[in-house]
Amino acid sequence: MTAKLMVELGERSYPIHIGEGLLDEAELFRAHVTGRTAAIVTNETVAPLYAQRLAATLERAGAACLRIALPDGEAFKTWETLNRIFDALLAAQADRRTVLVALGGGVVGDLTGFAAATYQRGIAHVQVPTTLLAQVDSSVGGKTAINHPLGKNMIGAFHQPSAVVVDTATLASLPPREYVAGLAEVVKYGAIHDVKFLDWIEDQADLLARRDAGALAHAIRRSCEIKAAIVAQDERESGVRALLNFGHTFGHAIESAAGYGKWLHGEAVAAGMAMAARFSVRQGRARSSEADRLVALLARFGLPVRPPDFDRRVWLEYMGRDKKNEAGRITLVLLERLGHAVVAKDTSMPELEAFLGSP
Amino acid sequence: MTAKLMVELGERSYPIHIGEGLLDEAELFRAHVTGRTAAIVTNETVAPLYAQRLAATLERAGAACLRIALPDGEAFKTWETLNRIFDALLAAQADRRTVLVALGGGVVGDLTGFAAATYQRGIAHVQVPTTLLAQVDSSVGGKTAINHPLGKNMIGAFHQPSAVVVDTATLASLPPREYVAGLAEVVKYGAIHDVKFLDWIEDQADLLARRDAGALAHAIRRSCEIKAAIVAQDERESGVRALLNFGHTFGHAIESAAGYGKWLHGEAVAAGMAMAARFSVRQGRARSSEADRLVALLARFGLPVRPPDFDRRVWLEYMGRDKKNEAGRITLVLLERLGHAVVAKDTSMPELEAFLGSP
Repeated sequence: MTAKLMVELGERSYPIHIGEGLLDEAELFRAHVTGRTAAIVTNETVAPLYAQRLAATLERAGAACLRIALPDGEAFKTWETLNRIFDALLAAQADRRTVLVALGGGVVGDLTGFAAATYQRGIAHVQVPTTLLAQVDSSVGGKTAINHPLGKNMIGAFHQPSAVVVDTATLASLPPREYVAGLAEVVKYGAIHDVKFLDWIEDQADLLARRDAGALAHAIRRSCEIKAAIVAQDERESGVRALLNFGHTFGHAIESAAGYGKWLHGEAVAAGMAMAARFSVRQGRARSSEADRLVALLARFGLPVRPPDFDRRVWLEYMGRDKKNEAGRITLVLLERLGHAVVAKDTSMPELEAFLGSP
Repeated sequence: MTAKLMVELGERSYPIHIGEGLLDEAELFRAHVTGRTAAIVTNETVAPLYAQRLAATLERAGAACLRIALPDGEAFKTWETLNRIFDALLAAQADRRTVLVALGGGVVGDLTGFAAATYQRGIAHVQVPTTLLAQVDSSVGGKTAINHPLGKNMIGAFHQPSAVVVDTATLASLPPREYVAGLAEVVKYGAIHDVKFLDWIEDQADLLARRDAGALAHAIRRSCEIKAAIVAQDERESGVRALLNFGHTFGHAIESAAGYGKWLHGEAVAAGMAMAARFSVRQGRARSSEADRLVALLARFGLPVRPPDFDRRVWLEYMGRDKKNEAGRITLVLLERLGHAVVAKDTSMPELEAFLGSP
């Protein structure tokens, strides 16, 4: 069964299609690629699995098709890799009507989206996410970026896709560690916005852990619904969208300071959510039973809930460069209770420092 | 006397202030920088001339001030130079409320604008152009970019500034070659849009050549008026804005193929306009007297009106990657008559090839 959601952004609105086998559905792509050159941007791991099928689908939808395979991994979310996309497009004399099609996980999606935002000052793109993390989070909402050695996602653009096509069957090929990392973002939606969804995740945890198709379909759909609703309210993160960053202030610091690729993004977010929940308790915002419940659910999936042993100065240095910060103050997303997060701009630095001494 | 024009783009509207000594006018900057960190981005040539004064002005306007000096020249309009801006901003933990202030010519303006478009997914910037070319053209309209070895301005974004502050007194320090290059873009506005302005440029040519303040003030103001009106109609170049590219299809090929920095942008545009005018005659669109008149005016300023002796394949290769092209066809801006240019998407390739054999 195929679901269709909309991200409502006026003239930039677009559909999210979710279902099994959608990689073969030429109709979903036709409006976006007919009469155009489509460039499939993917990585060396995903290419042998799905690039040929997607190319055939795009050709049936009326596109001429280029393929660009990048190296795989967060460590390659760099300018050098981005430039490989530009090199290939320019060598093929790809014009402004070219559409990029991102086939892969969050790294491929972010790189492709940023390439689309900046090639010839902006062209269209379609997201075809093949990891759970990309399907429930990074493919939706138009955040695109590359990393800088001094901070994750520091260089980028808001650039919405023309469509998101989620083929849930691609999750079958996902390595266990990557699959579990994606569950962290699913849990996040429950934690920040919908305690009933969190209840459901707890109920279905065993089914989700073994990739039950029915449970997964609901988890992906509900995650995308929540993300789409929040993005529709606040496309460029001037307010409520920052809630989606729950766990990410700590998590991005973990990813950057540990060296990109050592922790998967979802793993770092899981440990970051555990930290944010504990700090919410320390600040008297949330009850400890709520934090314990969140941490237990993450741990049940096998996600890390303890951060690496960084020096406090390392935490503060990386967290000091977070994009949510204002005027030298660190902004954090904290829990009031499960299902209700808030953006805290008044974090006490001495309290944060004490916490980072013993998180 | 200070003039104030507006670029009307709804919520992205902004003023262009034009006058002598505006570098010292804190009031013009106050609304854009107060309570913020301002980062002056300039180059090693301009920094010793004006950076100190502008920093003092921004501080009087209530900003804390960083300074970032880049190497000078078109050859440095690259990712490596852009990354020096990001390095400096991240080292200073500059947040999303930081405002970049571009102090310099077109290269500094384009790099700074693109850095503003992409630092933490977009921050504000103010343009303070110090070359004639930047004052009459590149600082207005929100086109930002870096070059790629395979094509000029191929990677970039549309990102409007919050304000443009043109201090005409800075032109006194401009080397003659750079000053003359800027006159090419002034002539362009007359050629494509306003034959009375072209008449006026011919009448005032001697005064303009010797940088007469009164003549310059009018030339800059009228150029900015025309640019602002065209940009207001078509911010993202889906139609009429392409007219501003008169001479640029040939010109960009000259700049890229000769090696960035060998030809100044205005010089390449002058030779490109001469080529476009001659090709318009060859195509039966314009009378030869009109092309001759345009070429004579450019030559009178000492601008080049003959292209370099590239092989025809080199022309076609670089022109084949122009951003205006669609579906493998080269788009050109051609003259119907002086004061009236048109976008031609139906250029006959055999005729263009014949022309490039003997331009």
